Amino acid sequence: MIEGHGDDIYAFDVEIVSNFSTNIFPCRNVGLERYLHDRIPTIYNYPSPDGRQLRRLIAAYENVEQQSVIVTSGAVEAIYLVATAFGHHCMVVAPTFSEYADASLSAGKTVEFTMDLTHIPADVDMVWICNPNNPDGRVFDIDELTAIISRHPEVLFVIDQAYEDYTCSELMHSSVAMEMENLILIKSLTKKFALPGLRIGYIIASGVLIKQLSSRLRPWMVNSLAVEAGIYCFSHLNEFKPDASALCREREMLAEKFDRCGITCHPSNTNFMLCRLPFGKAIDLKKYLLQEYGFLIRECSNFHGLDERYFRIAAQTHSENESLIKAIESWLRQL
Amino acid sequence: MIEGHGDDIYAFDVEIVSNFSTNIFPCRNVGLERYLHDRIPTIYNYPSPDGRQLRRLIAAYENVEQQSVIVTSGAVEAIYLVATAFGHHCMVVAPTFSEYADASLSAGKTVEFTMDLTHIPADVDMVWICNPNNPDGRVFDIDELTAIISRHPEVLFVIDQAYEDYTCSELMHSSVAMEMENLILIKSLTKKFALPGLRIGYIIASGVLIKQLSSRLRPWMVNSLAVEAGIYCFSHLNEFKPDASALCREREMLAEKFDRCGITCHPSNTNFMLCRLPFGKAIDLKKYLLQEYGFLIRECSNFHGLDERYFRIAAQTHSENESLIKAIESWLRQL
Repeated sequence: MIEGHGDDIYAFDVEIVSNFSTNIFPCRNVGLERYLHDRIPTIYNYPSPDGRQLRRLIAAYENVEQQSVIVTSGAVEAIYLVATAFGHHCMVVAPTFSEYADASLSAGKTVEFTMDLTHIPADVDMVWICNPNNPDGRVFDIDELTAIISRHPEVLFVIDQAYEDYTCSELMHSSVAMEMENLILIKSLTKKFALPGLRIGYIIASGVLIKQLSSRLRPWMVNSLAVEAGIYCFSHLNEFKPDASALCREREMLAEKFDRCGITCHPSNTNFMLCRLPFGKAIDLKKYLLQEYGFLIRECSNFHGLDERYFRIAAQTHSENESLIKAIESWLRQL
Repeated sequence: MIEGHGDDIYAFDVEIVSNFSTNIFPCRNVGLERYLHDRIPTIYNYPSPDGRQLRRLIAAYENVEQQSVIVTSGAVEAIYLVATAFGHHCMVVAPTFSEYADASLSAGKTVEFTMDLTHIPADVDMVWICNPNNPDGRVFDIDELTAIISRHPEVLFVIDQAYEDYTCSELMHSSVAMEMENLILIKSLTKKFALPGLRIGYIIASGVLIKQLSSRLRPWMVNSLAVEAGIYCFSHLNEFKPDASALCREREMLAEKFDRCGITCHPSNTNFMLCRLPFGKAIDLKKYLLQEYGFLIRECSNFHGLDERYFRIAAQTHSENESLIKAIESWLRQL
């Protein structure tokens, strides 16, 4: 899907004052900017075909062998690569990020949606899971998830952990993925280091899976400046770690206030959550907030399984969140 | 193919004094560097999913409609996209860039190689042509090429014009491509603006072809800084145009001197050419030049159809070229 994603600030002429549409915690890093400035001349040479320096750092960070890591041009390219290489009939745990289904369909696979991960039909050979899930921010219970994967050795599970740094809940460890022959993890520097512009993601998988994926790689998937930024970030981890518990508290505060306005908030374990208006359309709320306040939210009617009342909010700073509540209250009042 | 490409300066610990391995004319641009520096904060936001600002500029440059252009993460991604979307049995005009065959094979297609474009077997439904061709730099006669494409409306022709700015010979115009329903053009900012690190390429095709390709796109294929660099380059074209005729003259001078050493040089219409040693192995010459002089050349034995004596040279500055000749002469003497 090319159009219809959140964080679409490029699409508007008005100045964005606060971006609640992104579920990435803003985290400007002057050290990184300075480093990138010094590395601009890398544009004049080919990057290594497999982003090897970055790959080495990621492997060390994840505590896995270097050959278990594939660096991709954003998590989305990882999704498309995996969708092309594996599966015939895929199951997608919905509502979720649209690209799992889109990538599978464009690779000629068939897709079914479910809201119940515990029941996997016999004809499903691949399951896409976003954990924490986008758009609602919920985290699957780790023991339950591990048990399901173990119970279905004939099914390939692909877990997209792009949002792993935005939760305090326990997630799948890479070391566990290394021991399972039917599990692929996808991660994202977009979320981890708040760098959506650079397009860097990676895949972690064991033996046969990573070999099959590697045989399909094109050279130079990640550009020089993206590789350089990744090198800086993994070498300065302490500068980037978001305070997940503070972010979750802010989201909880928003949920309480929304609840008082009659807006239903789905349970979340992250900084973002899925909300449903008591009446009206989220697209109209989006337009109003943008025009009147310069606030951008993520309208969610194009997620499979959601209707026109749904929107997603990612908590920003406390004062931005307070302003958002007031703005939404005033929109609801005038309806 | 991940390993085995030229311009592999990242793979060596020795300092590269002159890079004859790249067929990109070096063209450092201070204005671009300054612009990129100012645009570093774009890393904090998603780029537009289809690189729309850059797409608009490319369409204007090529004098085609915006919807006839797809911006990709380097010409290599364009090649993989086209290989996945079209053809069953492909013909590759060899020796040439390895990725046409690799991309077709990895998409599950079959491939045959030919050195004779005038004979297209009945079971071939897609033909890959690199024009100017890598590694030899030859340019197909434009009238002959157009006639072949017109004579085979059932065959899809994909012409990679990545090196179009390095020749004075006439090539296929985008406006002609727009009128042919069986032609796709691939181009590269890597070559046009000497920016291999950034990974920007594009596809030009008409109606049905571009629609089929567009349905397979993933969002955010090109990163923010690459889009920004592209915007700068297409807005400052006069800063980048290489002097193709001067480059070709330097290559001719090299060819004459090589000839005197017994090295065979294939005909070329560009700044680079394919050479064959009278004896010895190109891999040994590569090692010698690297260790003794810090000169990098492209050993070509891994091109389909070429043996261990082949290497590719791209002309650099006159004094660098003179030094290279002396270095090769001294290697030949000691054999």
